[in-house]
This record gives sequence, C-alpha cells and structure tokens, in this order.
Amino acid sequence: MTTFAAPATGPADLVARRPVGLSLEAPFYTGRDFFDLDIEAVFARSWLFVAAEAELPEPGDYVTVNLGPYSVIVVRDDDEEVRAFHNVCRHRGARILDDDRGSVGNIVCGYHRWTYGVDGRLLHAESLPPGFDPTCFGLRGVHARTVAGLVFLCLAEKPPGDFDDVAARIEPYLAPHELRRAKVAAQIDLVENGNWKLTMENNRECYHCGGHPELQCSLFPVYGYTEQDVPPVLRPAYERFLRAEAESRTTYESLGLPYQAIEELDTRATGFRIQREPLDGAGESFTEDGTTACARLLADFPTARLGRLSLHMQPNSWFHFLSDHAITFSVIPLGPDRTLVRTTWLVHPDAVEGVDYDLDTLTRVWTATNDQDALLVARAHRGISSPAYVPGPYNPTEYQVEAFVTWYVNRLKAHLAR
Amino acid sequence: MTTFAAPATGPADLVARRPVGLSLEAPFYTGRDFFDLDIEAVFARSWLFVAAEAELPEPGDYVTVNLGPYSVIVVRDDDEEVRAFHNVCRHRGARILDDDRGSVGNIVCGYHRWTYGVDGRLLHAESLPPGFDPTCFGLRGVHARTVAGLVFLCLAEKPPGDFDDVAARIEPYLAPHELRRAKVAAQIDLVENGNWKLTMENNRECYHCGGHPELQCSLFPVYGYTEQDVPPVLRPAYERFLRAEAESRTTYESLGLPYQAIEELDTRATGFRIQREPLDGAGESFTEDGTTACARLLADFPTARLGRLSLHMQPNSWFHFLSDHAITFSVIPLGPDRTLVRTTWLVHPDAVEGVDYDLDTLTRVWTATNDQDALLVARAHRGISSPAYVPGPYNPTEYQVEAFVTWYVNRLKAHLAR
Amino acid sequence: MTTFAAPATGPADLVARRPVGLSLEAPFYTGRDFFDLDIEAVFARSWLFVAAEAELPEPGDYVTVNLGPYSVIVVRDDDEEVRAFHNVCRHRGARILDDDRGSVGNIVCGYHRWTYGVDGRLLHAESLPPGFDPTCFGLRGVHARTVAGLVFLCLAEKPPGDFDDVAARIEPYLAPHELRRAKVAAQIDLVENGNWKLTMENNRECYHCGGHPELQCSLFPVYGYTEQDVPPVLRPAYERFLRAEAESRTTYESLGLPYQAIEELDTRATGFRIQREPLDGAGESFTEDGTTACARLLADFPTARLGRLSLHMQPNSWFHFLSDHAITFSVIPLGPDRTLVRTTWLVHPDAVEGVDYDLDTLTRVWTATNDQDALLVARAHRGISSPAYVPGPYNPTEYQVEAFVTWYVNRLKAHLAR
Repeated sequence: MTTFAAPATGPADLVARRPVGLSLEAPFYTGRDFFDLDIEAVFARSWLFVAAEAELPEPGDYVTVNLGPYSVIVVRDDDEEVRAFHNVCRHRGARILDDDRGSVGNIVCGYHRWTYGVDGRLLHAESLPPGFDPTCFGLRGVHARTVAGLVFLCLAEKPPGDFDDVAARIEPYLAPHELRRAKVAAQIDLVENGNWKLTMENNRECYHCGGHPELQCSLFPVYGYTEQDVPPVLRPAYERFLRAEAESRTTYESLGLPYQAIEELDTRATGFRIQREPLDGAGESFTEDGTTACARLLADFPTARLGRLSLHMQPNSWFHFLSDHAITFSVIPLGPDRTLVRTTWLVHPDAVEGVDYDLDTLTRVWTATNDQDALLVARAHRGISSPAYVPGPYNPTEYQVEAFVTWYVNRLKAHLAR
Repeated sequence: MTTFAAPATGPADLVARRPVGLSLEAPFYTGRDFFDLDIEAVFARSWLFVAAEAELPEPGDYVTVNLGPYSVIVVRDDDEEVRAFHNVCRHRGARILDDDRGSVGNIVCGYHRWTYGVDGRLLHAESLPPGFDPTCFGLRGVHARTVAGLVFLCLAEKPPGDFDDVAARIEPYLAPHELRRAKVAAQIDLVENGNWKLTMENNRECYHCGGHPELQCSLFPVYGYTEQDVPPVLRPAYERFLRAEAESRTTYESLGLPYQAIEELDTRATGFRIQREPLDGAGESFTEDGTTACARLLADFPTARLGRLSLHMQPNSWFHFLSDHAITFSVIPLGPDRTLVRTTWLVHPDAVEGVDYDLDTLTRVWTATNDQDALLVARAHRGISSPAYVPGPYNPTEYQVEAFVTWYVNRLKAHLAR
Repeated sequence: MTTFAAPATGPADLVARRPVGLSLEAPFYTGRDFFDLDIEAVFARSWLFVAAEAELPEPGDYVTVNLGPYSVIVVRDDDEEVRAFHNVCRHRGARILDDDRGSVGNIVCGYHRWTYGVDGRLLHAESLPPGFDPTCFGLRGVHARTVAGLVFLCLAEKPPGDFDDVAARIEPYLAPHELRRAKVAAQIDLVENGNWKLTMENNRECYHCGGHPELQCSLFPVYGYTEQDVPPVLRPAYERFLRAEAESRTTYESLGLPYQAIEELDTRATGFRIQREPLDGAGESFTEDGTTACARLLADFPTARLGRLSLHMQPNSWFHFLSDHAITFSVIPLGPDRTLVRTTWLVHPDAVEGVDYDLDTLTRVWTATNDQDALLVARAHRGISSPAYVPGPYNPTEYQVEAFVTWYVNRLKAHLAR
C-alpha cells in the first residue's frame, strides 16, 4: 500500500535497469517518448514485413506504407522488381500518393504535377527555376527486399547486415508454398487500443489461448507442457500430439519439406523463429474442423496434411503457411496506445471465391482470434497504465515473450549507445 | 490593453504567489502539469467519497473506481466488510475487472486466469515458475472506510489521520437517515467540459443560483444576505426564512437531530462542512413544490419536514440528506478540461418505483441543476483559458469558494514541501 | 537513403538558419511550439481582418472572434463605432458571449450577471465586496479599425504603426465598391487539415491552378508566363489577356478606378498587395461563364466589366472585389494541423436572393475552389510531416509564396529579438 510517483527517470535509465524475468516497466508502453524512440530505434532501423508480393502483381502496382511519420511507396517497377520510395514530393514536400494501393504509369504529385518514373527519377515539372538539375530531385529511396513472395523494407541508411543470412535460411521453408504467384483473398485492418509491444507479446505466447475457442480447434491443447508435467486430463491430447508429430515428420521428410525449429529470436538484429508443426483435428488448416478452407492448394502438394509452417519475425510480424492458404500479420504502431494489425489471406492465384473457397470460412478463425486478442491487448494496456502496476514474473510458457522483450531492449541499447 | 505572454513560471511559483481574495491564475485550471499534480497531491492523498454502500449490498458485489491513471476495485468481502484493491493483475499487469460494477465469487483476471479471492489473496494460477510464492502476489490494497453508509477510499500509503475525528463528528448527523440499508434509485454520470476545480467552485456558492429555476423552488432566495442588508423586495422571503428556521430548530431538537453548522473547510486535511437547514415551499424535499418525492421515508421519521442535511467534503463531494431520499455527488477529474460528476439518488430499500416514487419527479431538480451547472463550468473554463484573463475578486457570498481554493492550495504546498 | 532524426534544434535556430529560395523546414508546420509562437509572435501582434462591417450593421450587433486561446467581442457601439473587447468577465473570468454573433443591449455575463455596456464599462453587479471600484473592472479592450467596410483588430498593446499608411493606400481602391453598406449573402467556414501557413502558401500561387477547373473559367491560363516564354499552345490565350488588359485599363481610367499593382508583401509589418486586373470569359465576375452572379451591382457602376480588385494582406487574409459582389477570406489557426478558412460573400444591401442573385451560382466557384484547396493543403501537411521531407525549391511563379514566408520569418525574428 504505497503511493506511486511518476518516474523521474528517462528511457535510457529504464532501459539500463530492465530486470530479467519480469515484464517491462509501464513507461515503455505508455510514454510518448518511448513511442518516438521505438519508431526511431526499432522501426526505422529494422527490416519490416510490409506486404505480400501478391499485393502488387503488375508493373506500376503500388501500396503505400504509413509508419509513424513516414509514408513509403512500394511499387513494382517496369523490370518487375519491387522498389520503395519516400512518398514525399521533392518540390514543396506534398504527400504524393494518397491511396492505400493502386496502379500508376508514372508517380505524379497531385499538387503541382511533378512527375516521377516508377524508378523514382524526376521526369517532368513545369516552370522550373533556372539551373534546376532534375537528377538531384528524384524520389528518396528506401531499401526493399523480397523473400519467397514477402516484401520487406528498411528505412535505415545502413540496414541490418544479417538479412541475407536470414533470407537464405527461411527461403527453403517458404518456397514450396509458392507465394510469389499467390493472390490476395482477403485483407483486414484492425486497430487495437494498446501499445504495439503488448500486441507482439500477446502473439508470442499461448498461455492465454483458452480465450480463443475457434483457434483451439486446430491447436493441440498441450501448450507449455512436457512429457514430465502434462496433467492426466490432457494425457490423451498429448498422446494424440505425439502421434501427429511422428506422422507429420515422415510426411515432411518424404516431401523434402524442412520442418525443424530454428529459433534465433533475441540473438541477432533480424530475430526470427521458424518451424513446421502438425495441427490438431483434420490437421490440414486453420478451420473449425481442421479441413482445408480452399479446395485448390497453394502448390502441387500430394497431401493437404502439411500442418502449419509458422514464422515469427522481430519486431512486427508473424505468418502461418498452410497447404491451402497462407496468412500474414503485420503490426504498425499508430500511437502509444493504438496499434494497427493487418491480416492478409493468400490463396492459389486460380482459386475461385465461391467455388474453391468461401471467404467467411477462410477468414473466420483468425478474424475471431484477432478480435479476442484486441480485447486482451486493450485490457493489458489499461492495467499497466495504473501507477499501481509493478512488473510481474514471466512463467516458462512465456519464454518467447521474454525473447521479444530482450530483443527489443537490445535494439534500444544499441541505438542509445550510438 | 497589454500583450499576454504564457507564464514561464511553474506550479511551485504559482502556488507560492497565490493571492488571497482573488480567483486562481489560469494555469491551475488549464495546465496538464497541474492536472497531474492535482491527481498526485490531492486525489491520491485525500479521503475520497466513491460510492454508497447501497451500491454493493451483497458479498462479492463490486464497483470499479477509475481516477486518473488509477483503477480500484471496491468490493464487499465474505465478512460483509467493504475492501478496496488496485485493479491490476500481479502477473503482467492486465486490468482485471472491466465493468463499472458487478458481482463475483473470486476476482479472476480475464487474460491468463489468475484468480484472487475477494480478500485479495492469489488463489490460483497455471504454469507458475519454480519457486513462485503466491503470498507475494496478492492484489495491492487500497485504504477503505465506511461512514454511515458512505464509502471512502484513500490511495496514499498513509492517509490523512484526521478522518476518524471527521467521521465521529458527522456520523451523528447522518446516521438517522439509515443510508447503510438504502437502495439506489438512480445514478447519472455527467461529463463537464471544464477543470474539476471549476466544478467544485461552482458548487460552493449560490451567487449564480438565479440560473437554477428548478432548484430555486426549494431554496430561500436570500443567499448571502443578512438582517442588515436584505433588500426590501426580499424582505417577505427573509421573514419566511426566519420563521422556517425557528420552527425547524424546534423540530430538530424534539427529534434529537443535530443541526448546527460545523464548518472546517480549509483548516484540516479532511476539510468539511455540515449543517441541517430548512427548505422553502413545502419544506420537505428537492422537488418543484417542495413536497416529498418518495412516499416511503428513508427512516421512521414522524414528519417529512426535516429540510436538508447538507455535507460538503474536500476535495470532491457534496451530499443532501432529506427525509425521503438522499443525493450524493462525486467529482472525478478526467483531464484538465473534462470532469465527471456522478449523482446518485438513494431511497428506502422497500420503496417501489411507480408506487412510492416516480423516477422523473425524484431526479428532475438535480438533473436540471447539474445540466445548468455543466454549461456554467464550460463557460468558466473557456473564459479563463484566454490570455486576457486576470484573477478577479471573490465577493462575500463566495467565501466557501475561497475556502475550497485555500484548502486546495494548502494541499499543494504540503505536497511540494515533501 | 539516410536516417532522419528528429531535430534537436528549437524555433530560434530554425528561424536563424532559414535558407532563401527553399520551402521551410518541417517543424515550422508540425510543431506545437511553432503553433504557440505563431499565435504569440504573428497573430497577437499583427492587424488581422476579422469581419466585414456588414456583419454588424446596427448598434449592439456583435461577432465573437476566437483565435487560439483568445476570444474577442467585436461590437458596434451606440455611436455606431466598431469596438472590440476581450470576451472574459472581470469577476472570475467566465466566457461572456457564447454565440458566434448576435445583438445585445448590454454585454451580460451568463454566470453571475455582471453587466457591461457596449463601451465595455462595468454597469452593474450584485453583492460586490466593500471598497469595490467598478471603473477598475471594465472589459479589457482590443484595438479595432475599419477600412472601407472591413474590420481589423490587433491584440497587441502597441499595434504595428504602419496601418494608417496601408489604410490610406488601399482605401481609394476599395471605396468605390461601397462595402460599408453591403450585406452578407453567404458565409461558409471550412476546416482544413493542415497548418495555417500551408493554407496561406497555397493561396499565394496559381502554379497549382490546373486543379481548379471552376476557377480557371475566369482566370487567364497564363499564370507565371511572360512575353518571352509563353508556350505556343497558350499564345491565343496570352493575346486575349493582352487585349483584355489594354481594354480594361481604358475603362478603369475613365472611371477613375486605381488599378496599378502595389506590392509590399514582405517589406513592412502590415504586408499587402493590391491590384485590379481583368478576368477571362465575360470578364465580369467569378462565375462559370464570367457574367455577373448578382444583377444588382455593388455600386452605381456604368459597366459590370471591372475585372477583379484583389487584395492580399499578411498574415491571414485575401479578398476579391468585383462589380457585383465581393468575397473575403480569413484564415484562423486552430492547431498545428487544423485551420479555419472563413469565406464571406457580400452583395448590394437591396439585392434580393432569388431575384437579383441565386445563392448557389454566387458561391459555386469559390466553394469548389476552397474544397479543392483543402485537399491540397491536407496533402501538403501529410507530406512535410515525413522525416524524409527536405525543403524544396520555389520556382519563379511562386515568388509570392516566398514573400509570405519571408514576411513570416521576419515577424518571428523581430519577436525573438525582443
């Protein structure tokens, strides 16, 4: 029963004194200074998943990515490469493209008609001053990369150098799902009333999964248990899980699909975790009975029972690749207490809605799960906003939450040391 | 005709230079720094009226009190005592109870199902880390007290020590109205667009009561006048007031009801004022003709003409206790320019709506008066926000406003001196 | 491809290093500190156009002007002079008049009925303290001036001394339009989602006018071109412009109407530009075919082909005076990224709606143009908010934008030097 004073300490002190094994102190989640620091130290310096290549299939197709104060145009150029540019006119700075997505021949600013190519070069402008050199006024570039159909960008001048290695290691897992040629079946944006790190932490544990009845149909209810401590009531489920795991390994190996977990969540700049695992029920997909949601599989697989290939990437994305569809999730901070979660469902390019898949069936499990998570994140944010909040203990099933937090704090430390 | 610069002075300087006899300088009302200081120095250190016991009649009944960044659970425990706890899970800090009120067996966090008793002890949680001691992870307590059916809490570790004395002195006035067993007939929350101190100041004078036609039916229109200066036009009303006062004293004394004013508004930590006074018109209640609004009286009184027992408490509440009902008012700051006013009407537990009382008749006078006051508070806040505002003079009828301000400034001084 | 850090520099540094020939750095538009500085250094120290006299034709008529934290009552007094007072009661500071406009006998505060004359003197208040001197508690005055039917005010104690000279020089241009006796046909308030300086900059160039199809009907499409560089495709329009200019000068001279440009936009405290110019099409008014929108002309002109008399005043207004109507525009900052644009259409006092003019025809061109400009201003604000924005080059057709910016920066310099 103590009085709780607002901390007089700044981000550097809070970062330095972060204890191991406990949740972060409140200002990490509630402070405007930490929000700005997170954009600068984490989001402007890391590789970020921002779109599927399927979102921009043709030259001139673009999406705009708005991240904190930044706006970036991601566009497929005339050589079919994906490129990225700051969405800021070099004249007096107007936002150039206003829509979330579209298709253009050239990139034309709607204010004074300055006209840039999809390669970023300034092609035309009226009434230019004497001595004006258009080659000095191309759009400012942003680093962009694609990996097996996923588009990543990095706002930093020098992006983390380990991305080549990460790409090389995850590409063999992802490539069989042939996402580069997939099509977008659905995309849903959800705004959560909490800090982006609470959104990520919530994603990184299944300790709360009892609150996800739809999702529980396809997840084995043995999260966090081992042979030693599985309780008697869960013993049948645990046996079912062991059988499914053995069976699925045989399948993966016969198909040449890599499946072993690689877990480097907090030991590198581009932290990640990847693993292929069986699903419960029919074992095919994230549906209420576990059967496929799309009759046309993503690739020419001999079976639909491929479980889920799950990828987590720091700081802001996760993915599930199934035999019949893939789901991508990206998280964009909007404010200290507001976060955008964008979920995209990808299917085979020739799959036909209403014939091969029903949109509601395809999206039901994760739409429900996301909505449930949004309530939990809001509840978490409101709670830690109280001066009575003190950091509490992670338990063993929350080790990936702690790995996320450790990775994050290390990014801040690296930035503050510059 | 001067230019008005924003003050470069901080709260400590403004507190130190506060002049006597004039309204406060603008930053006290408009500044975010003063808002935070008010929460910390005043609301987190004073005893606050937060609910009537009638709002939680049974074990397990609770209300949540949200005050600035704090959220508190006020719950009746299994021994029928009222207790209070911070509404923050000891795991990773989630808000535990989301509703304004309800009833529970245990207090269960909706995130990971950590389960606490209504005495705050941690009873159960899954997957705990090795060596975890649940006795270290009970809910953090908040001081709670009840006085004659009113629930008070204090967020400070060491609450003001004078509350026992205040309770002992007001209890004999309040007890005859038997609020401990009353029931809630209505509760209305109103958000005023002004600083909480403007809400309180408005409550502490009747100089503006010409703007309250409904209320004026039961108040003698002689506020601020004495024998010497009552104007001729009000002479008949003044005579009526004197007769009512003499008559009512006889009644109060014959019934053993204390009525003399005790006024210690700015001379102690728990400032208060209490007095029983006659009402105009029929003299029974706050209705448009002054007759009772509820046929069933609050207690076994031989007459309904008991006037009003009025209690003011610093920093944020006032009350009127009548023969037939009681009305409580509590004020909660929401932001520098937003304030919640919660009004609760209490009646005899066996009074039946539609039979003994009509809800609209019961609530009409104070609903109208509150709505009128909300407009005045908004007008006051907008005005003092202008750089052209300079503190103006209180007049003699505003002495209780000045007492509130003096009490408030003394609280800030005491806090800043720590 | 660089990382963009938030500037550690304050307003004084940014003002000092402002380069010539380039747009301003982002914090001028996005920072709360610059917003406050703009109110204090520019809006509270300059003469501001705030209303047409036609908005307060009779004694007691008033408009309230809300500007940042200020609220000002502009009222016609009993001697028919226009006067201005801070809209703040001298008692405890309440906002006195809540409506945007109205008519009063006295100025009565709605809180405690303190009553002031339309000359600002305190006439009456109840329950005043002993020794109270009402002559010390009149409303605080604000400097007010009228010029040819336009009302200007200045919040500073010492307004810029050059206003007499400006008034003397623009009055001969304006007086023939007899606005003092005009009536308000329409007034529209529009909130733009951008900084007020972007609104002004947008007004001060026609480089973007290709985006204004309705306006383009009456403007010659040769903006920014000279004899030397007019492109062949615009040659016919340019010849048409030269003929109209020659013809109109003959008309202006025969009628004794001054028309030559005076351009002192950035060389004085009260920067301005005035010029009478021909219009394209029928050459009479801002309508889609260039004919008059009001059959009753503003004054007893022998022809309606008077083109447009255009006046720009720093910091926040512009005007077009035509033979049949006049349009005034004033810009009020609401926040760093929100700006009010008020447009008022004035016609002859005896012109009858539905007979002499159709309201939709009268207002169509500028309503459409304002709506288009609002989108451009929002686009400009969003763009410069990106850390990737770098100031870009003005071209020769944007010299009045640069003049505005230079005037503005000089005001900040003068203020910061105090």
